[in-house]
Amino acid sequence: MSDPIEEGLLLAPKFDADGLVTCVVTDAKSGELLMVAHMNAEALKRTVESGEAWYFSRSRKALWKKGESSGHTQRVVEMRVDCDQDAIWIKVEQTGPGACHTGRKSCFYRAVPLNQVGAITLAFQDAAKTFDPAEIYGKSE
Amino acid sequence: MSDPIEEGLLLAPKFDADGLVTCVVTDAKSGELLMVAHMNAEALKRTVESGEAWYFSRSRKALWKKGESSGHTQRVVEMRVDCDQDAIWIKVEQTGPGACHTGRKSCFYRAVPLNQVGAITLAFQDAAKTFDPAEIYGKSE
Repeated sequence: MSDPIEEGLLLAPKFDADGLVTCVVTDAKSGELLMVAHMNAEALKRTVESGEAWYFSRSRKALWKKGESSGHTQRVVEMRVDCDQDAIWIKVEQTGPGACHTGRKSCFYRAVPLNQVGAITLAFQDAAKTFDPAEIYGKSE
Repeated sequence: MSDPIEEGLLLAPKFDADGLVTCVVTDAKSGELLMVAHMNAEALKRTVESGEAWYFSRSRKALWKKGESSGHTQRVVEMRVDCDQDAIWIKVEQTGPGACHTGRKSCFYRAVPLNQVGAITLAFQDAAKTFDPAEIYGKSE
């Protein structure tokens, strides 16, 4: 009765209608959430084979290697898959000062206040820029 | 020139074609990644207003409150949004022994070995069951 997707040991990613799985990226040392991205089958394959993070950009509809323009590559220390195999978690060593194309360490630099009704005003949190994106990117990642 | 979505303080979630944003859920105390889920506008609104986690199930096409059948609710301690506002991060206090409907603390209980080519064999990691899902759910969440 045990579900092979949930209890089995064969990697069988459940790609969505666009051929993607979600990828959560945390810092291997601090545990901090750095970014959320997507992988198609090719990005997942390249990441597993190379140990460096590859993604698929939904906006650009293109495979990309993290750091290909910024130099801020990610070495994968550990990879996990979730129960229904539609999400991947990678713990990475982030090269350079940050993972976010806005110039921050993490993409999650704004807090959403809770217990509010109606339009919501965010609050910057850990939002200091660790690099100047204009210097790093000809165009943003 | 600064992008209001990335640098502004108005919450303006970028829902995908199905009306969803990705939600990353970590344990507020340990920092552990518990699960990845999705929120539609209503789930996000209810989560912000109530401080308890609501999601939208892609498989069941239904709004659900985490713990509605298991009792394993999630109290949101902090919420963040990412640079392009298509992903939400919540840090939660998990009620009960685990977040995963398979009976584990986290949904990410299998490691994907790196530097492999071809079919990939997973390895259980932190996979001990902390509760018996058959006891908790009439049907799985």
